Amino acid sequence: MAGYSELLSFMDSPVFRLYATYAAVVTLKMMFLSAWTAKFRLSQKVFINPEDAPAGKKELVRRHDDVERVRRCHRNDLENIVPFLVLGLLYVLTGPSVYAAAWHFRAFVASRFAYMVCYLLPLPQPTRFLACLVGYGVNVSLAAQVIMNGQLWVLGGFSFGLGIKIMSRGGQVRCRRGNGANRHVQFPIFEGYDELPFCVI
Amino acid sequence: MAGYSELLSFMDSPVFRLYATYAAVVTLKMMFLSAWTAKFRLSQKVFINPEDAPAGKKELVRRHDDVERVRRCHRNDLENIVPFLVLGLLYVLTGPSVYAAAWHFRAFVASRFAYMVCYLLPLPQPTRFLACLVGYGVNVSLAAQVIMNGQLWVLGGFSFGLGIKIMSRGGQVRCRRGNGANRHVQFPIFEGYDELPFCVI
Amino acid sequence: MAGYSELLSFMDSPVFRLYATYAAVVTLKMMFLSAWTAKFRLSQKVFINPEDAPAGKKELVRRHDDVERVRRCHRNDLENIVPFLVLGLLYVLTGPSVYAAAWHFRAFVASRFAYMVCYLLPLPQPTRFLACLVGYGVNVSLAAQVIMNGQLWVLGGFSFGLGIKIMSRGGQVRCRRGNGANRHVQFPIFEGYDELPFCVI
Repeated sequence: MAGYSELLSFMDSPVFRLYATYAAVVTLKMMFLSAWTAKFRLSQKVFINPEDAPAGKKELVRRHDDVERVRRCHRNDLENIVPFLVLGLLYVLTGPSVYAAAWHFRAFVASRFAYMVCYLLPLPQPTRFLACLVGYGVNVSLAAQVIMNGQLWVLGGFSFGLGIKIMSRGGQVRCRRGNGANRHVQFPIFEGYDELPFCVI
Repeated sequence: MAGYSELLSFMDSPVFRLYATYAAVVTLKMMFLSAWTAKFRLSQKVFINPEDAPAGKKELVRRHDDVERVRRCHRNDLENIVPFLVLGLLYVLTGPSVYAAAWHFRAFVASRFAYMVCYLLPLPQPTRFLACLVGYGVNVSLAAQVIMNGQLWVLGGFSFGLGIKIMSRGGQVRCRRGNGANRHVQFPIFEGYDELPFCVI
Repeated sequence: MAGYSELLSFMDSPVFRLYATYAAVVTLKMMFLSAWTAKFRLSQKVFINPEDAPAGKKELVRRHDDVERVRRCHRNDLENIVPFLVLGLLYVLTGPSVYAAAWHFRAFVASRFAYMVCYLLPLPQPTRFLACLVGYGVNVSLAAQVIMNGQLWVLGGFSFGLGIKIMSRGGQVRCRRGNGANRHVQFPIFEGYDELPFCVI
């Protein structure tokens, strides 16, 4: 069966392997902050729910700056690492060079570790700001490359709406179009070719 | 090497390209709110950490409704865009028509931009609620299609546990089963066929 | 066209189908908490923005513990389910057995449903803590397997930097290297082979 072995062959791609490794490492780093929050809650006796506090100690349901600091760092991770995980995967699928991909991933992962250290110690600004900025810049770069790669098709789609030509060859309905570079691309449309003039952006 | 070139051929799929483009655009929109929060913090002089405020101005560590508004919008983005990014990818892999996929993605991205505008201006309700509802509905539709597509196998799995038949043919252990539609599906099992009777739901 | 049909063949993989189904189910569970928050806000008349409250009822812009409880549960979902969605996909691509994958996914999804029930009722501790711990452990296990699978290449990369050998054969630049197991792996490098000595970790 084709699907399963092809699936496994993903891991043969060096770029994908780099992505998978760095993605797992930076996700573990993000998950570490969950454990760190729990550790502070127990050691500082700061509980967020009445049922978490020891019986009869409702005064321990309170806020504490050490805990809130870890939670702010965690939220910033969610806001930055989650985009990286998705954009990184899409970026890998654009077929970048190993070199470019490796440096994008390394810069991002290093910036998130630096951010965490800056936030938790804490170090004086603008160290934390700069650490965040590097990761943010990597994400913007990844997104730009994904969009530029995808948009070739999107832009081609405009001419597609005008110059559509449905053909049937070898029992399969095909649709031929010319994109901006006057290259001809064909793709099969399964029982949906009548919808196409309305669908492409 | 097979894996690498197959990986690149992903981008040949029109549905995947649409997904990649819209996913990157809506992720950038989400990331914009990080920058917007930082901009408000600096312009309104509202800092969340003591080390962020200028030296000797600890009274600037405070809350401000403009900043909290952007953060609430950002959190709602996390709660809605992240499911879209994952469900959208899984949905692409179910092989939908370009037409259906394009309108799902467009509706979602438009609803999230509308949501952001409604929240930040702000516009009177129920505009923001309706904008959110459209995106939420798209996510539910994507999830339903992924589950229905996957569940054919899952339901087939029940009969699998009862009618399992291990075979060895051509040097490879195979497992043949009939699903509900009485279609026979084969898949290779690498050194794990003895575990199968217990494993399928 | 190769890309499109290969894309569709993903769904032929039993492990991937399990992942897709469980991922969609647990994402829907997370999205349910958005609806649940909205339901509590309307029934308890607790609004977070001035424009949400009925005209002239600004005193309804307030906090309420029932709503905050749902939101805390939702945030914990974001912190745990999002890593699962990414790590689970990468784990599927390492080619695990159906058995191992199914039990990882089942344990995670069950733990998140249990967590939600424990949080919303609420049940006394340590039920919620234990529910969270199971899901956390699954994520750590997934990440460890992804990293170990990817790192074979990463470790191989060290020797790569020392023993690199650029070849041109059949019009395509190739790069041959031996990894720790003395296996030879080849991959094509598109116009980037001069960058390779610097790029591999």
